[in-house]
Parts: sequence; structure tokens; C-alpha cells
Amino acid sequence: MSFNPLIEKIIKMKNPTVAGLDPKLDYVPQYIREKYYAQYGKTLEAAAEALYEYNTALIDALCDIVPAVKPQMAYYEMYGWQGVRTFDRTVKYAKSKGMYVITDGKRNDIGATMESYATGHLGLTDVEGEKIAAFGSDALTVNGYLGTDGIKPLLNVCAEQDKGIFVLVKTSNPSSGELQDLKLESGESIYSRMASMCDEWGKELPGKYGFTGVGAVVGATYPEQLTELRAAHPSIFFLVPGYGAQGGGAKGLVGAFNKDGLGAVVNSSRAIMCAYKKEGCDEHDFAGAARREALRMKDDINSVL
Amino acid sequence: MSFNPLIEKIIKMKNPTVAGLDPKLDYVPQYIREKYYAQYGKTLEAAAEALYEYNTALIDALCDIVPAVKPQMAYYEMYGWQGVRTFDRTVKYAKSKGMYVITDGKRNDIGATMESYATGHLGLTDVEGEKIAAFGSDALTVNGYLGTDGIKPLLNVCAEQDKGIFVLVKTSNPSSGELQDLKLESGESIYSRMASMCDEWGKELPGKYGFTGVGAVVGATYPEQLTELRAAHPSIFFLVPGYGAQGGGAKGLVGAFNKDGLGAVVNSSRAIMCAYKKEGCDEHDFAGAARREALRMKDDINSVL
Repeated sequence: MSFNPLIEKIIKMKNPTVAGLDPKLDYVPQYIREKYYAQYGKTLEAAAEALYEYNTALIDALCDIVPAVKPQMAYYEMYGWQGVRTFDRTVKYAKSKGMYVITDGKRNDIGATMESYATGHLGLTDVEGEKIAAFGSDALTVNGYLGTDGIKPLLNVCAEQDKGIFVLVKTSNPSSGELQDLKLESGESIYSRMASMCDEWGKELPGKYGFTGVGAVVGATYPEQLTELRAAHPSIFFLVPGYGAQGGGAKGLVGAFNKDGLGAVVNSSRAIMCAYKKEGCDEHDFAGAARREALRMKDDINSVL
Repeated sequence: MSFNPLIEKIIKMKNPTVAGLDPKLDYVPQYIREKYYAQYGKTLEAAAEALYEYNTALIDALCDIVPAVKPQMAYYEMYGWQGVRTFDRTVKYAKSKGMYVITDGKRNDIGATMESYATGHLGLTDVEGEKIAAFGSDALTVNGYLGTDGIKPLLNVCAEQDKGIFVLVKTSNPSSGELQDLKLESGESIYSRMASMCDEWGKELPGKYGFTGVGAVVGATYPEQLTELRAAHPSIFFLVPGYGAQGGGAKGLVGAFNKDGLGAVVNSSRAIMCAYKKEGCDEHDFAGAARREALRMKDDINSVL
């Protein structure tokens, strides 16, 4: 009913980071791609199989040093249902290796429909009395634009299954302020209002480290807002994208954490996945390069905490 | 680069409606479910196959009288990747029958990621030079909370492929007002601000009926806001959920249309899909009941235009 399992892994590994698994095909080393083109032709099937081999090698290289992975659904849907099957196999593989899995789907809908998303991603689907984990992730990112009845079904599933959600509050992209920074009549910003709604929703999902099961997405690219939101909402756990490739550095992350060094999990996707390109090492060593970058990131973040 | 193809179908069929394909397993007649349980056991595979047979029969019964279908992705994701494969097959089947397909996914993300959603749902995925339509829908619902750079990649794909998007403006659910109705310092509401952003984005996708390729989702359950938004934003085409099962009636829809009787496509999902239950007819006649309800809805809406 909260982020307890994630926070426990973070403490144990001394590593408040998550590796994003956002596999575009051109991130995948050529020797892997060629293998599957030879088998399946230049098809979605081949792409999906190549992504799966790439993902599993990354998970193998990271699972003892990084507590969580965050597959981004867009990069799987881009390869059709075959890509979504790879997403599913990736979630299950990461879990078999003991990793916490945050599905980045930014799902949102009216209550009856959100119930289906909640069931499919975090809960158990009922097939005539058989209860089946369709995707079976540990946490899901969601968008709160629809208000409470679009969030409530998630809270119910999280309460039953010890899972959590991250609600978009202040996103990492350049134009996030167009809507999120607008001031309301009350003087508060829209993102601040959204964070207050997270506080309300979180009351249903208390956690033992002082953080509820309703977290927030707050971009590393906006360090001032990170600090402001941390101070104002001590019980909201943050998922922080934008470190590394999007330009946010470790110094700007300090404000995301509380005095115990808890309160956030920082994501890096491309910098880890494509570390072999930046390093310039042999592409067969892509997983080794990912591990080296993940360790560098861990040290970088711990150095400012 | 706009909703021209949808609007042409609406004019030709004299029917401004779309049939939602939101198939929960318990909507599917028992004889279909039993057939696939016998074949695959009580599994996601069986569920997904049952949904596909159900969907195709509905499409066959509706395709000459209803211009469009709107599959809601949540109901497919609930059945795992097998469900998403049924979603894919449903999109392709509906298109083969000449229907316009609106994927209801309410997708949203930062620019680089939204490009993948845009490509997967509306565009062509590049597999080493081969261009493949992963899902190949005609339109996608999206959430604009992230601002312009989360929308821009969609506009690029829509411009290339003659497709459109519907942005959530004022949703049909009871708590939509919690955030969307809040007043900004400027005095305007958040939903009104979002509609103005749709006007801006739509400038890149002009259409020949006076509507751009950037539409808006506005719930039938809020007739005042429908009327207000229609008057203030004459070039935004509306996707209107909430007719029927959610309680919005035909009278409240008048405000969604302009003086030419254009400007909106009204969705009905459960009332059409489960018409056989309400009618109390033999479940083998479920598709016939869906057709009768779709014709009743068409007449109901035309009677107020």
C-alpha cells in the first residue's frame, strides 16, 4: 500500500536511482539487431526480440546495484503489440531478478476506465474467476488532470497489492510551465495544487518511512520547484526524471531529498542505455558500460546527499 | 492533417456518432466466452480471442451506419499483451471495413517520448528503413498537461499522415472540475486555457470544414461548458463522451454543434455494446441489438440538431 518495497531496496543498495528502459531500436547494438533481422526480417517481431535481448542484458548488469527499472511504455507501443509483449516480458524478467518495476505510462481516464488500467498494470485481471497479473508492475505513473475519481481506482488496487503510483506534478520538459506554472486565483500554481491533491489521495496509502503510496513526478530540470515541493509535501515520494541526458545535474537534486537522504528516486534512461556509445567501447560491452554509468551516477548523487 | 476524413463520413452517413469499443469480458455473450475457454482455458489468451470475435461482430453490424469506432486502450491492456494484440487486430479490422478509428489512449509525455507514441499509434515505425504502421489509427486522444513540446510531435505526424488528435479539455467524469474548473489569476478556467492551447496547436493543421486537426474531449455531462466552448472555439472539433450510460442526453448535446450541424462526434460505448442486455434479447443477437441502439442514438441526436 505504499513505496515501502522500493524504499527498502534504495536503503539496502545505498542507491536512490532507477534505470529507465526506453529502448529505441537505434540504441540496440548492431550485432543484436542483425541477429533478429536475419531470423525475422526487418519486422516489428525482429525489433521486439532485439529489444528484449537488449533489456535482459541491461537488467542482468544492473540488478545487484540499481534497485529499480522504469520501462517507458511509449517505446514498446512504438513496436506494436509485439513491442508490448516485450514490455511484458521485460517487467517479468526484471521482477525475477528482484528489481522493483515502475511502469511509466502516465495513464489517465475516468473512474470506470482507470479501474481497467489499474487492474492491468498493478492488479489482477479476472478471467471467469481466475485472477491473473496481466503486466504485474509495482508502480505506475499517472496523470491527475481528471481529478479524484480518475485516481481512486488506483488507490484501491495499491491498497490491496502493496503498490504505488506517481502522479505528474511538475514535469521535466521545457514547456512544462505553460500549464503547470500558471497561477490560480488562490495564488498557488497548478503544479502546487496537484501536489496538494497527491497529499489528499496519499492519506489512503500510508507507508512506514513517512511516505505515502501516492508519489509525484518532479523534473530534475527544475531544482527550485523540487526544493519547494519537498519542503511543502514531506510525505510525497518523488520520481525525478531529467538527470543526465535532459540536463539536470546532481547538485540540483539535493532539494529532492529530506535530511535522512530519502524522498526521491532519480531516473536515468539514455545515459545508462547508451553509455557504450558515449564511452566509445566495443558494442558487445554495452551492458558493462551501462553498469559503469549506473555506478558513476550512484556515486555522483550520493556525493551531494 | 485534420479531421476531414471523419467529417466526410459523418456528413455522408448523417450520423455524428462514434461507437466506443471498451470490451470488458463480462460484456461478451457467454456462448462466445465459453468457446474460447474450451480452446485456451481461462487465460488472457482466451479473453483476448473472445473480445476479438465480439468486436468484429459489432463492427460488422455498425460499419454501414456509424462512421467511427473508438477502442479504449485500458480495456485491452487489462488483458495484457494478448489484449493489446486484440486492440491491434480490431483497429485493422475496423479500417478494413471503412471505419474511422479513434484510439482512446489519453497519451501524454515529454517530446522525445511523445514522438514514440505518435509514431506507434498514428505514424510509421522505422525498422532499419522499413516503414511499418504499428497500430495505424486515424486519431488519438491525448492529455495536454505537459504543454506544447508534449504535443508538437503529434502535430508533425498528423501533418504527414492526414490524422488528428483530441486533447482532454473538460472531461465527462464527476470530479473533472476539481482541477479543470479552477480559475486562473487571469479569470479564465483551466479547461478554457487548455482549449486556447488547442487553438494554437491547431493552426498547424487546418481542415477544409473549418475545423483543425487538434480537437478536444468535452463531456456530454457538462452541457453548459459544451456550449461555452463551442462558441469560443469555432475551429475545434469535439469528441463528446458521456452520452447514454454516463447520463448525458441528446438535448444537452445541442450546444456542441454549430449552425451547420457539425463540430462534434458523440461517443456511446456501453449502451451500444451491451444493448442486448438492456433489450433482454437472445445473446446471439447482441450485434443486432447494438445496431438497433446505434440507429436509435443516431435518430435521437439528429432530432435535436
